[in-house]
Amino acid sequence: MSRRRIRSDLGWSTTDKIVVRGKDLPGEILGHLNLGDMAFLELTGRTPNPNESKLFNAMVVTLVEHGITPSALAARLTYLGAPEAMQAAVAAGLCGLGSVFVGSTEGVARMLSENADLKSYKKIPGLGHPIHKPVDPRTVRLFEIAEQTGFYGKYCKRMEEIAAEKKLVLNATGAIGALACELGLDWRAVRGLGVMARAVGLVGHLLEESREPMAEEVWYRIEEEASSHLKPKR
Amino acid sequence: MSRRRIRSDLGWSTTDKIVVRGKDLPGEILGHLNLGDMAFLELTGRTPNPNESKLFNAMVVTLVEHGITPSALAARLTYLGAPEAMQAAVAAGLCGLGSVFVGSTEGVARMLSENADLKSYKKIPGLGHPIHKPVDPRTVRLFEIAEQTGFYGKYCKRMEEIAAEKKLVLNATGAIGALACELGLDWRAVRGLGVMARAVGLVGHLLEESREPMAEEVWYRIEEEASSHLKPKR
Amino acid sequence: MSRRRIRSDLGWSTTDKIVVRGKDLPGEILGHLNLGDMAFLELTGRTPNPNESKLFNAMVVTLVEHGITPSALAARLTYLGAPEAMQAAVAAGLCGLGSVFVGSTEGVARMLSENADLKSYKKIPGLGHPIHKPVDPRTVRLFEIAEQTGFYGKYCKRMEEIAAEKKLVLNATGAIGALACELGLDWRAVRGLGVMARAVGLVGHLLEESREPMAEEVWYRIEEEASSHLKPKR
Amino acid sequence: MSRRRIRSDLGWSTTDKIVVRGKDLPGEILGHLNLGDMAFLELTGRTPNPNESKLFNAMVVTLVEHGITPSALAARLTYLGAPEAMQAAVAAGLCGLGSVFVGSTEGVARMLSENADLKSYKKIPGLGHPIHKPVDPRTVRLFEIAEQTGFYGKYCKRMEEIAAEKKLVLNATGAIGALACELGLDWRAVRGLGVMARAVGLVGHLLEESREPMAEEVWYRIEEEASSHLKPKR
Repeated sequence: MSRRRIRSDLGWSTTDKIVVRGKDLPGEILGHLNLGDMAFLELTGRTPNPNESKLFNAMVVTLVEHGITPSALAARLTYLGAPEAMQAAVAAGLCGLGSVFVGSTEGVARMLSENADLKSYKKIPGLGHPIHKPVDPRTVRLFEIAEQTGFYGKYCKRMEEIAAEKKLVLNATGAIGALACELGLDWRAVRGLGVMARAVGLVGHLLEESREPMAEEVWYRIEEEASSHLKPKR
Repeated sequence: MSRRRIRSDLGWSTTDKIVVRGKDLPGEILGHLNLGDMAFLELTGRTPNPNESKLFNAMVVTLVEHGITPSALAARLTYLGAPEAMQAAVAAGLCGLGSVFVGSTEGVARMLSENADLKSYKKIPGLGHPIHKPVDPRTVRLFEIAEQTGFYGKYCKRMEEIAAEKKLVLNATGAIGALACELGLDWRAVRGLGVMARAVGLVGHLLEESREPMAEEVWYRIEEEASSHLKPKR
Repeated sequence: MSRRRIRSDLGWSTTDKIVVRGKDLPGEILGHLNLGDMAFLELTGRTPNPNESKLFNAMVVTLVEHGITPSALAARLTYLGAPEAMQAAVAAGLCGLGSVFVGSTEGVARMLSENADLKSYKKIPGLGHPIHKPVDPRTVRLFEIAEQTGFYGKYCKRMEEIAAEKKLVLNATGAIGALACELGLDWRAVRGLGVMARAVGLVGHLLEESREPMAEEVWYRIEEEASSHLKPKR
Repeated sequence: MSRRRIRSDLGWSTTDKIVVRGKDLPGEILGHLNLGDMAFLELTGRTPNPNESKLFNAMVVTLVEHGITPSALAARLTYLGAPEAMQAAVAAGLCGLGSVFVGSTEGVARMLSENADLKSYKKIPGLGHPIHKPVDPRTVRLFEIAEQTGFYGKYCKRMEEIAAEKKLVLNATGAIGALACELGLDWRAVRGLGVMARAVGLVGHLLEESREPMAEEVWYRIEEEASSHLKPKR
């Protein structure tokens, strides 16, 4: 029984044609759009203009690589057990991009786009950083690119005001959340910027793990320390 | 007890500095590299030249969106149950990029880079397509871009010979596997091209799902049909 | 640099000894504890008495199999693409056990154990069911077992009062959340009951999928319908 | 267009009835089957007799808890970033149960049930253990339970012969693979025994992590060591 029509506008193909978001994939996309532009097309249904392309690519690129993160470690430890299923190792690494890391971009975009009451927040997303203080150098650079491309606007200003008021650094996820609003992106897609970026970075980590492994050593050390109080003394 | 040194060359940061692959992230990467270039940097340790950038971006962009795939459906069905954890829905969608779909790029790159004996294969990866025959329009276009950028070489030729010999279409994963070899990528990273690309596409699917849902309807229909032979007739 | 001691009390092993939660695995656990008892040991640090064993096993068993769910479909669709990585297909199926399905057990246990103000809830967890009305037969049976084993207590009564007040059916996740409180389980472990149970059920689905596949047919049908408005008419 | 009938025999429900594998869930399953028995029902379509129940539960219980494994670490690191999505942390932990860990049970069951030529194996699954030598105490105990329950048979003997011939310890995954064959389980379900067991154990790890966290400390230490050769000396 069919209750509701099922439809998707993302893509279709026939024997000799492949169309994505209304564009001919071989003819209009391949060789014309870079990976960030393609992401923009996926999320907005249109190709970015050069300014949008520059800013959007910078936002996503910011989130690709952060060195050894919990997410990268989870991916590497997963790869140790299932090297034949690299896709599952990337998936494991993505699973932790929640409320604590990366997910805060979504919180910022939602807060700004819904003009939320700050008093309703226990902790305002996008503020504070354990290492980068008093400024996050990524925020500085992203807002510089926003100025150059004409996208530094009310959402960026609002976040800077909030940060000043709370006397906390405006971190990169705060900047990216604000810039996503400037670009008119739906807040429900904004966590996805970090997810797609980190997928790129995790592939880099797994390639390095295949050449210079650390997962096994991490495991041995932690296992040994964690259970040393339980094991009989030799 | 430390048995082995743990090290990673991917990135590091201090209070005011963030360095990825030896480059200053704000100063040398943001605003300079697009997302595909950044992926190239992650996988090779260097920034691509313009020809490499054009080809590499085209290869990855090819794999972003294929409409409603099993992977996209798995992501959408996951999002239905946990919309607060979009990252887990993307992860679920990636888990199926194994030997049957997408993973064949890896098989092609390995086969070509190791100059494997074709007789040892039950099924040669990168050949055949259920829909795109007698040619896969993506292969045609990717090899055209390879010609333009100077990367159409021995691995592409070899795959075309194999396809001709086996009288099967050289599909996009076959072309991408060959082009990865032309670019000198390690075969162990090649499945990752599809994984990162599909992560981008899955975010697009989840945004569409949040606006025009299909997962619940899919579930109802399939559940009803699957169990109709068991349920008492009304 | 070590900042904090790393320790775990769950298990350890030496050449000839394997100890889990202070018990000798071969000698005191294997052949003595069933899988539900083992889960109880993992979550509480002690073996259950016969009444606890009966109730706890019944709670978890309730959540194993619900036929074709979104979670089961996600697992099957994942298996279609990566049959060599069954563990990843189970993982994909688990990723959707969030706020909408299964996760509500956690919400109930937290609400009851923290004696939360009902007015702070937009939607009270554990109430209502699309099919099972006016009673959920699992709730009836679980509370019967709770009576028999001496665990029908204040949390069960409280949930029944809330359901009566809201004029909604007390569903199985509501009952299980209440019973988890009666057993003294930490609410933070309660979502895990559904996760472990569903892992068991998903293995069953994947075995059936390997024998009587549905994923490919689901894919073809949905893909065809979803893109039919885009494709050129033949 | 429907090409093929979609059906599943696992379960169905109506307003007042829930049936799993042909049995009334509230009336015939809850309070009667423990979690291991329920898993047996899912995999075989029938309830186990007492001997089957004892052996099958012991096999699965063996695989629940191994202390700090790569899988447990991946789950804990994931939970650090997304504590609101515990199901995704369990999923991340399961993703690594592949060819290196746990998955070898499948290899053993397949080898034995297909009576495979040992010469075709580079490495015979189920043999050898880094710690438990010259015997794996779990194997000893599992075979003891097999003797008691009447399931010590040709597959167990065959594995013992192979281990003796190769002068390697018959490890627990080897024993479990053989016992799965004795119970008549399909080899395609056997990796699933470890997957469901480990799902139980991972919930235990995440509960411990929520009380006595280690993930953040693991991250800090490894990040510091991994990048120390890159960072400027202070």
